[in-house]
Amino acid sequence: MANKKKKKLAMVVFSGDLDKLMAAFIIATGAAASGMEVTMFFTFWGLRALKKKNLTGKSFLGKLMGIMERGDISKASPSKYSFGGIGRWIFEKMMGAKKIPTLSELRRMAIESGVKLYGCQMSMEVLEIPKEKMIGEVEDCVGVAFFIEQAQDSDIQLFI
Amino acid sequence: MANKKKKKLAMVVFSGDLDKLMAAFIIATGAAASGMEVTMFFTFWGLRALKKKNLTGKSFLGKLMGIMERGDISKASPSKYSFGGIGRWIFEKMMGAKKIPTLSELRRMAIESGVKLYGCQMSMEVLEIPKEKMIGEVEDCVGVAFFIEQAQDSDIQLFI
Amino acid sequence: MANKKKKKLAMVVFSGDLDKLMAAFIIATGAAASGMEVTMFFTFWGLRALKKKNLTGKSFLGKLMGIMERGDISKASPSKYSFGGIGRWIFEKMMGAKKIPTLSELRRMAIESGVKLYGCQMSMEVLEIPKEKMIGEVEDCVGVAFFIEQAQDSDIQLFI
Repeated sequence: MANKKKKKLAMVVFSGDLDKLMAAFIIATGAAASGMEVTMFFTFWGLRALKKKNLTGKSFLGKLMGIMERGDISKASPSKYSFGGIGRWIFEKMMGAKKIPTLSELRRMAIESGVKLYGCQMSMEVLEIPKEKMIGEVEDCVGVAFFIEQAQDSDIQLFI
Repeated sequence: MANKKKKKLAMVVFSGDLDKLMAAFIIATGAAASGMEVTMFFTFWGLRALKKKNLTGKSFLGKLMGIMERGDISKASPSKYSFGGIGRWIFEKMMGAKKIPTLSELRRMAIESGVKLYGCQMSMEVLEIPKEKMIGEVEDCVGVAFFIEQAQDSDIQLFI
Repeated sequence: MANKKKKKLAMVVFSGDLDKLMAAFIIATGAAASGMEVTMFFTFWGLRALKKKNLTGKSFLGKLMGIMERGDISKASPSKYSFGGIGRWIFEKMMGAKKIPTLSELRRMAIESGVKLYGCQMSMEVLEIPKEKMIGEVEDCVGVAFFIEQAQDSDIQLFI
């Protein structure tokens, strides 16, 4: 097996929605479990998945965006039926009843199974979310060239 | 040609929106028509594309979700301009005027051209949609490992 | 290098949202910059990225849709916080402050770096957007078979 190259998955996570982030982490962890090398690139709203709890933003509009998008991964809302938090509550109840891990737990499982998490530098600048406001497990903040390089060489590519 | 492996397409269908489901079935049928082996994995809201008309759900929240998401594929709303059914009506009119098949017809065409449909087991459990409430053409209900296996080995992968 | 085949990226752009179009053009330009051959297929709402300013639509519903979706690429709204144009204004301000090109500039950069833009024939018919109402840089209006052909043979495929 020494000369057998590992299969690779490269994923852009653009969405910050609870349900899409769940799908992203479940696919990533599943791929890692099957022996693949997995890289996730979080961009735009997807950065929520990497943020700590603290408010972000420096300029007036950056702070405004920080308030609108406040909270860490546990505050992600579903893409449907968000209704000011009710949708999230319903989802969490329904998933809890089936013993499905929460989003934070899914992220931890992904990290523990070797999935690499990257933040998109340009979105971090635009949304004014500096690296210090992100969890320590983020490998690095990278540009689009890094994603292209990874994706070119991978067996599965997804945009979520 | 006997030893030539068929090209493959593996698709995750996460969305249950009329327009995205149309895109998914049109791409799937187009790929099958060009001789590809096509597998579609329906997860979360995408499960609507596999449901029968009947209400779903067992627990209180499951029933509530079943009511909010009631109806089969013909009740899918577009991702924009849904306005309580008006968007769907406009779309159906506009597509009908150009003799474009409805979503149910597109699904039938996909099945007839050999596209394989799979339901995501975990979403079916969370949303409380058992296999009996799905159309008979669903091949099987599978976990993420099955998708990874298919996608690893495929020439095109998409997340819709 | 003469016999080395260029790597390829094939992208379906379904979304017409400001933020998703930005991601699409940035990925496309990044891929072209790294030497890849890039093809973008614009379908449904994504057609906004190819439209000129003029109103579209011929039938009553087509004209209604043309009014609802009026404007060229510069009128795209973000997928979140659109609020009748405020979201777009905030985004433009935040991106301008970081010297990030506008969507129209990103499109121009993509075209200049050799990215090929195609319109989906079927969506153009349904939404009643004829080729004359699109920018001259559009290569052609094609069917799904053309996308499948490109994607089969490409190293990266994305649905945005």
